[in-house]
Amino acid sequence: MDDNNFELWSRSVGGKPSHFAAGQTIFAETEHGVHAYIVRSGSVEILIDGRVVETIGPNGIFGEMALIDGGPRSATARATTACELAPIDQRMFGLMVDEAPYFALNVMRLMASRLRRKHD
Amino acid sequence: MDDNNFELWSRSVGGKPSHFAAGQTIFAETEHGVHAYIVRSGSVEILIDGRVVETIGPNGIFGEMALIDGGPRSATARATTACELAPIDQRMFGLMVDEAPYFALNVMRLMASRLRRKHD
Repeated sequence: MDDNNFELWSRSVGGKPSHFAAGQTIFAETEHGVHAYIVRSGSVEILIDGRVVETIGPNGIFGEMALIDGGPRSATARATTACELAPIDQRMFGLMVDEAPYFALNVMRLMASRLRRKHD
Repeated sequence: MDDNNFELWSRSVGGKPSHFAAGQTIFAETEHGVHAYIVRSGSVEILIDGRVVETIGPNGIFGEMALIDGGPRSATARATTACELAPIDQRMFGLMVDEAPYFALNVMRLMASRLRRKHD
């Protein structure tokens, strides 16, 4: 099962899509963050201390931690290829959790898979 | 801020409270799990590979990962002191996520804090 498939929400989050070129930094570790992103096309790598810990493909979500707890970015996100992203702001994220419990469960599932991977 | 405070839900989850004596194992790593627990009194330690990674006090929740993704227990839970726990089954957990978006956000916040801790 793919824990990181947010296709259902990829088209409905509204907002202007963001485009990044291969190699471009989307956000950097420790920065303040105001958006999560769903990948519409292309791929994004997530780095901690310069090491790639995850690669996010189409319909995957990333950057949600800063929206959940208001903390700084816990990782750096960099475009692996040219990519189109659908940004989700705090208000939209709260709305999706409120209105779509399955969205909340999906985010929890994704976080659970990341927690399990960390213990390996 | 305490990310693991589920006082609001501690009394409302229904079900018969479970009691454990100090030192008793509540569940073991790799077991199949059907309940999460809110601590009503006492404390519980969470162990991975025999090492204590977290201690959960009153109003804290643990064991939610197995309910979220249906996977095996990712850690062992052991009563540090005599404790009273409020068990939450899959149906109740789903209901709380559905009906109480703030519960879902709280669980996400807790998982975010665990993910951040792992990177330290």
